[in-house]
Amino acid sequence: MTDIPKSHPRYESLIRRERLVEGLKDGIVVPQGLIAHGRGEMFDYILGERTTKEAKAASRAAAALLLKAKRPVISVNGNVAALCPAEIVKLSQVAKTRIEVGLFHRSDERVAKIERILVSHGAMNVLGFLPDARIPGLDSLRALCSKEGIYSADVVLIPLEDGDRAEALVRMGKQTIAIDLNPMSRTSTHSTITIVDQVTRAIPELIANVEDLKEDQRAAKVALEKYDRDENLGLVTKGMAGNLRKFLDR
Amino acid sequence: MTDIPKSHPRYESLIRRERLVEGLKDGIVVPQGLIAHGRGEMFDYILGERTTKEAKAASRAAAALLLKAKRPVISVNGNVAALCPAEIVKLSQVAKTRIEVGLFHRSDERVAKIERILVSHGAMNVLGFLPDARIPGLDSLRALCSKEGIYSADVVLIPLEDGDRAEALVRMGKQTIAIDLNPMSRTSTHSTITIVDQVTRAIPELIANVEDLKEDQRAAKVALEKYDRDENLGLVTKGMAGNLRKFLDR
Repeated sequence: MTDIPKSHPRYESLIRRERLVEGLKDGIVVPQGLIAHGRGEMFDYILGERTTKEAKAASRAAAALLLKAKRPVISVNGNVAALCPAEIVKLSQVAKTRIEVGLFHRSDERVAKIERILVSHGAMNVLGFLPDARIPGLDSLRALCSKEGIYSADVVLIPLEDGDRAEALVRMGKQTIAIDLNPMSRTSTHSTITIVDQVTRAIPELIANVEDLKEDQRAAKVALEKYDRDENLGLVTKGMAGNLRKFLDR
Repeated sequence: MTDIPKSHPRYESLIRRERLVEGLKDGIVVPQGLIAHGRGEMFDYILGERTTKEAKAASRAAAALLLKAKRPVISVNGNVAALCPAEIVKLSQVAKTRIEVGLFHRSDERVAKIERILVSHGAMNVLGFLPDARIPGLDSLRALCSKEGIYSADVVLIPLEDGDRAEALVRMGKQTIAIDLNPMSRTSTHSTITIVDQVTRAIPELIANVEDLKEDQRAAKVALEKYDRDENLGLVTKGMAGNLRKFLDR
């Protein structure tokens, strides 16, 4: 797929870009997804391109919430499918969640292609291709979802989610777990739990936390109780502002 | 081209995205250009999506440098051609510069398409299609340029330029004027003058400054003398860090 040597200082970042460009060629990613990724790249840059301790705390709380959920669902869009399909499938297995393809720029063809990628990584029974329910308050195509999946879910993991859709899910009374690099986005500030991290780092971290908390209900309870979204987002934003100033002094 | 109402609070930003997505479909913009635009969007967001007073000071100095130049050239890439072709042509007319198409991901077809767009907006004799010189220190395709244009220019305006190319031009002894939303990029920190602003705002501002300073050599001299790149970039970055913290308190 690529000629980028693993020793390249920006290897991880360049690989993510290549995966998205490939995804665009394959009809999985839309052009708007590339622009959105660029915005995320910049936030990741001033975050330090690492999983911060705030992201780790949010991830532990998120793992606890997934384990507590009765009907957890992971919502997958084009960028997520292009960036880390294997990790999404693994998470759905360890946390026993459903997977539903949910697209902002929906077409049946894109849903089918994304489903195929997930299935090729071992997913079973991916939802979203034949929607039979609607998320209230969204435009026609954006509202479509599966009754068995997102519509009746109690907890939805929404990596790289659009603000309108994130808010609409919250209005439906669902608990949501966002993965978003912009700590000030509507998605970040409206979700039950927000992990400010690159999705390719966040999903493996979440898998590890689910595995860790699976047998330890007490630790899971503590992780959830200790987590305060607004305080967490505040610390993340302060860290970013601090890093931005530090770049100055170099 | 679009259904976005002018009253939409994010109208300008959405139009820029649409122009780039159109440019991608037309083969002018490459996918990597969309990711780069996304990074810029984020910086613009924390800049306040406006032309700051630092950008205004840099723009005045840039106008003075263009007016002083013996062989000024504007380097145009796919994103610039998609975002503000008419403005680029107008600037080349008021500042009496050449225009050369210079691409990071070069293909003759893309150069030809970009040339056609510029000509459709009134440009005469656009350079770049038949390169006959090389910028030392760059890979084969990236090094190509025109002897009559960039190769023999004394001042080159490089909106949205890649860091390698920007540094190579400086090593050739050229004075460069960068337009870049990332005040910490190699392009920003290596150019003679750096305007940290969205290119669609920066080019009209530069046109106005060229027109203003054209008949006033003394004011032009003062604008150039007063400008200090590192101080200017420091103030911009401080402003961004401050804005980031302010978002916190909302």
